[in-house]
Amino acid sequence: MISSEVRTIEWRDGRVIMIDQRLLPAVETYVTCSTWEEVAEAISTMVIRGAPAIGVAAAMGVALAARTVAFTESGAAPAMYSALQAATKGLFATRPTAYNLGWALEQMRTVWEGAVGDPRETARALERRALEIMGGDVDSCRQIGEYGADLIVGRPAGGGGPATAPLIPAAPCFDDGPRILTHCNAGALATAGYGTALGVIRSSFARDRRLRVLADETRPLLQGARLTAWELKRDGIPVEIITDSMAGFYLGRGEVSHVVVGADRITANGDTANKIGTYAVSVLAREHGVPFLVAAPFSTIDLSLEDGSLIPIEEREATEVTTLGGNRLTPEGVGVRNPAFDVTPASHISAIITEGGIAFPPYRQSLAALACNTEGGCP
Amino acid sequence: MISSEVRTIEWRDGRVIMIDQRLLPAVETYVTCSTWEEVAEAISTMVIRGAPAIGVAAAMGVALAARTVAFTESGAAPAMYSALQAATKGLFATRPTAYNLGWALEQMRTVWEGAVGDPRETARALERRALEIMGGDVDSCRQIGEYGADLIVGRPAGGGGPATAPLIPAAPCFDDGPRILTHCNAGALATAGYGTALGVIRSSFARDRRLRVLADETRPLLQGARLTAWELKRDGIPVEIITDSMAGFYLGRGEVSHVVVGADRITANGDTANKIGTYAVSVLAREHGVPFLVAAPFSTIDLSLEDGSLIPIEEREATEVTTLGGNRLTPEGVGVRNPAFDVTPASHISAIITEGGIAFPPYRQSLAALACNTEGGCP
Repeated sequence: MISSEVRTIEWRDGRVIMIDQRLLPAVETYVTCSTWEEVAEAISTMVIRGAPAIGVAAAMGVALAARTVAFTESGAAPAMYSALQAATKGLFATRPTAYNLGWALEQMRTVWEGAVGDPRETARALERRALEIMGGDVDSCRQIGEYGADLIVGRPAGGGGPATAPLIPAAPCFDDGPRILTHCNAGALATAGYGTALGVIRSSFARDRRLRVLADETRPLLQGARLTAWELKRDGIPVEIITDSMAGFYLGRGEVSHVVVGADRITANGDTANKIGTYAVSVLAREHGVPFLVAAPFSTIDLSLEDGSLIPIEEREATEVTTLGGNRLTPEGVGVRNPAFDVTPASHISAIITEGGIAFPPYRQSLAALACNTEGGCP
Repeated sequence: MISSEVRTIEWRDGRVIMIDQRLLPAVETYVTCSTWEEVAEAISTMVIRGAPAIGVAAAMGVALAARTVAFTESGAAPAMYSALQAATKGLFATRPTAYNLGWALEQMRTVWEGAVGDPRETARALERRALEIMGGDVDSCRQIGEYGADLIVGRPAGGGGPATAPLIPAAPCFDDGPRILTHCNAGALATAGYGTALGVIRSSFARDRRLRVLADETRPLLQGARLTAWELKRDGIPVEIITDSMAGFYLGRGEVSHVVVGADRITANGDTANKIGTYAVSVLAREHGVPFLVAAPFSTIDLSLEDGSLIPIEEREATEVTTLGGNRLTPEGVGVRNPAFDVTPASHISAIITEGGIAFPPYRQSLAALACNTEGGCP
């Protein structure tokens, strides 16, 4: 199965093991966390990143906190309760933009908040829930991939069904297969596996082997050049890396059939926070009539926020921009700005691909309708 | 005088001395060229870069070639002629996009092509012409700076004239002074001194000290983060560095009053080739109603080309994208694209600022009219 080898995060023997995404592709090494504080540190420092993966990590962090109290400290239910409150608060404070973080912590809270029984039972229940969230995320990504491939490639005949055309026409006409531009990494590494935007690319490639990818390098942390290129190369999907400043050039030359990106938070009206630079790509895609697709699980959709202006945008340390691999790039004493995300308005988005189906504009209606059909329930 | 200390290129004792722009700001070191081949190598490898500076370097390269024949080899006129033909061809082949390169070589050709006298006289005449081109470039930049400041800040009362308002209103209304976004480096380092886009910024800052600059870092070679930031810091002009992917974010938030960039080649209709990523900025500026200004001397304007589709676009080595400071950024075996320039359509450009005055749309008429008023003559 495509990309089954990438293990973003695992729960093993009461520990959380994550691939260190800061060092890829040069070094493939793993970080082991035994406490929720170590998980929080891993999220803050971007050992693990990508909204769905952050959610899974946070859930496992809560499970670790419970385990510590129940098995190491042999704590009673009240001690468990305060430990889990503290862990939830601490994990929530790591990064503000990704909605999946708060979503996963709330999922975990429903398990522990009412629990008054044996703390060890609660700890085991939390571990099970964290693993469910992880498994659910992989399932969601695979479903997103299939819906996305319906959009981009169409469905082959088989399984009793007829062949279908792509739901969204490529623009302009691409005779030699889809040519997809993506920004940042919304891949197996950004999720529990398979990926959102890269899930769409993987499933589309499985149906049309002519597909090729242009990957924005995604400064400052180069998730595109490092992680997306690494994942796609492992899967044998043709990919070329460009600097972020080249996306407009290739869109302008008609060399992009679709843009597909992930999301960190989607509000009720469809506005989408994603890695800094996504907004610019959306403007350029619209300028050239290229479909702009967002791929994300429901755990990224924040129906409590009316629109994107309400999404908190994290500003990260200047050193991410001023240094690279130990080299200083910029003159000493010159200021730097480093917002980590921007918001793409719903009006620039051709479709939002979820595990529950594809939402088309107007999103306030279509997202609410999809939400009603999922286990999350109606808003 | 602002920025008088930056010596991009000098002619000294029959040698050409250039600051090595690949190493700034970490190291300030100089490269000395004694032959035209060394100058050609310096242009190819971007020891020196920026269209006007490339033109000056090429002119000095021709002067070096003549000097070698006339003084070292004591050659006769025919030997001089073939040497200068070879040097002109070799220098012209270094980089395809900057029009100033061919322009400067043609300026030099008018000196040597008809020369049948003493080769040492020809060599001295070529040296004088190269120095005139250098001096003329500084003068042009200062004049461009003043015209640009008229556009952005307006003119203070004095010198017998009344105060004037800015010729182009900032968008949106900026009460706290201009906030200029620039891309790449069109500064003293890209010219013989003072700069084109940075000349406009320097002259505007001299009139309104509230001016602040946002500098795109400009991947892959980081001319913004390294060179623009270094120049502006030396001049005490407030500057903040952003990644290229953040320009859209700040334009979208209304934090940019004007975009000012340089040019590598401007065609008869106003289409402008400039550093890769300029096109994307122009789309984003138009999206947000922010004036987009191009600053360039006449030596950048190629009236022989009808439009930008005819401009040759250089594609440079993949290593510029895949490595940085000796670190490999991308996985081995993944392809990379690296176009060095893109073309901004005239329709995105609010004004083109030259040493002969400001051209407004339609540019086919306004650029031709300005050309008629300069020594270059009517097209």
